[in-house]
This record gives sequence, C-alpha cells and structure tokens, in this order.
Amino acid sequence: MKYCFGVDIGGTTVKMGLFQIDGVLLEKWEIPSHTENEGAAILPDVAASIEELCEKKKIAKDQIEGVGIGVPAPVTEVGIVQNTANLGWGYKEVKKEMEELTGLKVRLGNDANVAALGEMWLGAGKGEKNIVMVTLGTGVGGGVILEGHPLVGTNGAGGEIGHICVNETETETCGCGKKGCLEQYASATGIARLAALRLEKDAKSSLLRSQEHVDAKAVFDALKAQDEIAEEIVEEFGKYLGHALANIAVVVDPAVIVIGGGVSKAGEILLDYIVKNYRANAFFANQDVQFKLAELGNDAGICGAAKLILD
Amino acid sequence: MKYCFGVDIGGTTVKMGLFQIDGVLLEKWEIPSHTENEGAAILPDVAASIEELCEKKKIAKDQIEGVGIGVPAPVTEVGIVQNTANLGWGYKEVKKEMEELTGLKVRLGNDANVAALGEMWLGAGKGEKNIVMVTLGTGVGGGVILEGHPLVGTNGAGGEIGHICVNETETETCGCGKKGCLEQYASATGIARLAALRLEKDAKSSLLRSQEHVDAKAVFDALKAQDEIAEEIVEEFGKYLGHALANIAVVVDPAVIVIGGGVSKAGEILLDYIVKNYRANAFFANQDVQFKLAELGNDAGICGAAKLILD
Repeated sequence: MKYCFGVDIGGTTVKMGLFQIDGVLLEKWEIPSHTENEGAAILPDVAASIEELCEKKKIAKDQIEGVGIGVPAPVTEVGIVQNTANLGWGYKEVKKEMEELTGLKVRLGNDANVAALGEMWLGAGKGEKNIVMVTLGTGVGGGVILEGHPLVGTNGAGGEIGHICVNETETETCGCGKKGCLEQYASATGIARLAALRLEKDAKSSLLRSQEHVDAKAVFDALKAQDEIAEEIVEEFGKYLGHALANIAVVVDPAVIVIGGGVSKAGEILLDYIVKNYRANAFFANQDVQFKLAELGNDAGICGAAKLILD
Repeated sequence: MKYCFGVDIGGTTVKMGLFQIDGVLLEKWEIPSHTENEGAAILPDVAASIEELCEKKKIAKDQIEGVGIGVPAPVTEVGIVQNTANLGWGYKEVKKEMEELTGLKVRLGNDANVAALGEMWLGAGKGEKNIVMVTLGTGVGGGVILEGHPLVGTNGAGGEIGHICVNETETETCGCGKKGCLEQYASATGIARLAALRLEKDAKSSLLRSQEHVDAKAVFDALKAQDEIAEEIVEEFGKYLGHALANIAVVVDPAVIVIGGGVSKAGEILLDYIVKNYRANAFFANQDVQFKLAELGNDAGICGAAKLILD
C-alpha cells in the first residue's frame, strides 16, 4: 500500500492526516501554528511532524506519494502564496520550501477549494466530479470542483462565492468593501445581522427577544420551535443563498451542492429553505442538482489536501 | 504538417474549416444543413465534404488528427446529443456516427463553448487559458474556458450565462420560463425591449423616435450621436451585464472576458458601458480582468471545433 499526507494549515492549529491512497484515513493529529516571526516555523514544524510519524509507523519515503497542503490564502498554480491574513507569511514559495524540507512531492491548494475536494473524495460529493461547496461560517467560503479538480482561476480566487452581489440596494458595507455580498446574509454573522434588523423592525413577539445575544444558532433553534420571526429571518437567508446558488449553477452546472460550515449544524431544516429558493430561481437544466449537508466536518481540509497529491 | 477539421453545425448552414494543427486556417467553406427527415443527412453530408476536400488537397487520412464539431445543443462527455431545437435531431450518438462515417477521431462540443475555445486559441483570448465569452445575439450565449478547456458541466449546460437572474422584480417572462434573466436585457432583443419601454415612459425627445423599428443597432447609432435616451438605455444594459459579469468572475476568476455576437459590432463604446459597471461591482481579486471584443466573428465556431481535437 502507498500513503499520502493531508495538511490543513490554519491560523491556530495545523491539522494533519495520514491516508492510504485508497482514501482510508489511518491517523489524524494536530500541531500548533507558530505564526510569530512571519510564520517561519510553520513548514519546518509540519515537516518534522511528518518525519516523526513515518518513523513511528515505519513508513519509508518511497511508500509516500506526497504531501498535499491547504492554506488560507489564494495559491498560484506553481504553489506560491502571495500573502496570508492569519499565518504571518508574506510572499512564500510554499511548494518549493516544503519539497526541500521533506524530499517529498508537494501540492498546494486554497483551503476552501481543498475542503470542497475533500467532500468530493470522501464526503457528501462521493462519486461525483462536479460539485459546489459553500461553507457558511463566520464568512461565506466556497469551492468549485469541476471534472474532479478545483477551479483555481487566474488569481487563485476561483469559487469566492461569498462575494457574489445579491442585493443592489444594500447600504451596509461588506468586509471586502462592496455592498450586498452574499456573505452579508448567509454567514453566521450575516444571519445574526438579519436577525437584529428584523427584531428592530417592529415589536412582534418572538422567542428571540428573550436572548441576550441572538446568533445564528439561536435563530435556528427558534425556527425549530416554530417561531414566526425566526422563520422570516431564515426565509430571507434562504432567498439570498438559494438565488445565488441558482446563478452559480447556471455557470458551472454542478451535480451536487454541498452546504458546510458552522451554520450547517442546523441540519436538514437549513436545506429546506435553501432548496425551495434555489428551485424557484434555477434554470431548467439545473433543476435536478442535489443538495447535501457536508459530512466531513473539520476533516474536509486534510482529506482534500491528501487528494491533491493523487491527481 | 498535420491537419484537423473544425465543423460548426447550425440550423441553416454547416461551416467547415481545414486547419494546420499550428492554427493556420487553410480553407473554409459552407454546406447547407439538411434538417428535414430528422436531420438524417447532416452528418453524411459533412463526412462527404471532408472526404472531397481531402482528395482535392491530396491529404491522406493519417495526416489528419481528427474532426471537431460544434453543435447548437448540450453535449455529453461521450459525444451524445439528447435533443436539438434547430437540427431535427433527437437522441443522437454524434461522435460515434461521425467516427464511423469518416474513420477519423471525432470530438464534440456545444457551440457556445466551442466559440469561446476558438477565441481563446486564435482570437481575443490568445495566450490565455481562463476566459469567459459572452455572445450577445438574438439571445445571450456564453462559454467558459478554464485551464484551456471548456467548462462542460454535469448536463452539458455549463456557461449558460444568459439565464443568470439579474432582476428579481421583472414581470415579463424570459424564453426559458424564468423572469429577470440577463438575456432579457443584454441580447439584441433585450436591448430593443429596453428601448421600447424607455420610449413609452415619457415624451422626451430622441433620435430613436423617428425610427419605425428601434433595434439594438439603432440604439447604438443614436448613442454615438450623443442621444440622451439612447445613453440611458445602454447604461441600463451595461448595468445588468456588468453586474452579471462581476458575479461570474467571482466564481470562475477569468483573465479575459470576451464580448461577441451581433451586438458587439457596436464596437469599443459597448465595452465602456460594460466595464464601468463591472468595475463598480467586481470583487477586488477580479478587478484586473481584461475586456475584449471578439475577433473571429463567424469563424470562432470552426476554430474552436478544430481546437477540440488538439487537446
């Protein structure tokens, strides 16, 4: 059997996994991300951790296909990162440095694209090769997989679907500087914002009014208790997200749309509101897209990173 | 030197081209499309025409890399067409039939994707590998090329950007059954519709009022003569198209957006209105996209079809 490593570098921890090339995850672990000193220690720490595990498992170098790495930044085709918000890195030739440190083949990908690839390989998109993954977390991330490969794009910015403009009349500004981005309505933060706006609008009674801090989870909990205000908020969320996904589908024609991230913990009820609005807006050729909740949770990154090396 | 054929099958004529594999177009010609009798004669006619040209040019079969074909329908990966609006074909195994008729390798593509591939290979997108092409004709067609290959999608419906919804308040219905599709504003028909609506709105004077039939060309001619009503109409057109292209760019991250089709004959002034609205809506990573007018005109189809065979 041959092996490969999947590495998911985040601002706090580096998640790592050892896989058989047939997709069996043999071992997973984490190490801290040392982002101080421009993140100089991150790659050497990862390389040392891989070395250590190989010794422990008695795996020889020639049994390893390589190391796939997901990073929270745009990545060029040749494995270079220009800048990162969370790791301390400026311009960094990640692929080249990591190949020198490990003596192994290295492939690099953007974390959102890599998570989508992971869901395609071992999760909600298993068996498919055209998928769109939307990650509803603090922000809205996205990854598009076409013919089994991530859509990277010219600037490594492919699949940045959180910044599709879905409301031209928005007056508040998104973190990106534009107004009306999907992220302003469909992220956890966005849902909390919609909730605050709705609760301010009038005095209609709601379970949410007893909460000190109305976050996305509170909204979905209230929805499950048939709260009408919560339903209005989720309907609005679903309208923007469903509509945006219909517009994405008409461009990339996916087989499956996977919904992940913290907000997706609300479960199947979340899909109901997205799918209804999707179907109402989708082009006829895209009506049959399947919607699924993400299945791999925090492992999506290591799984997708490992898959990078097998393509 | 090796050769290949590019074939662009339309409802009235089949355009054909003989290319050197380095991209030199040696000869182009047309034959009629015999769509009667479920289009049974179309492929045999094409095969006979290829045969004839090879004899005339003294080209042997083993000098030919193959035949690429563009058809006005979604195409599956294995070269099957399910249905066509204009050719008379129902389910048809086009690739297989054509390979049997010619003894040559055959590749099939959707006409809009193939035209985009042609512009990438020999036209406005030369040297690039990530392009979006928008064809503004009677309808709005689109083709997306990523890493040098057409985005085909799960149903062969990738790049159907005419059916992105750009206006949720639209009351008129698009040909596809939805409301507010880009095609309702950015096609030649759409521009004529915007013009009629604007002229009805009030009695403000305009060069357009002296015209019996206000079509897209009349609008752009009046714009060039500084007509204010024409400017309002084109501004509205640019707003919808620029916004839609910004949303497409954030998903596919192209290097170049190519504008083609009959409406693009209006020239550079058309780009001004599109680009201005694009820049106002585009995500920062996509601000530097280049906009270009299509360069190949009616030859885009045969060029792209020929390129299909060389990949």
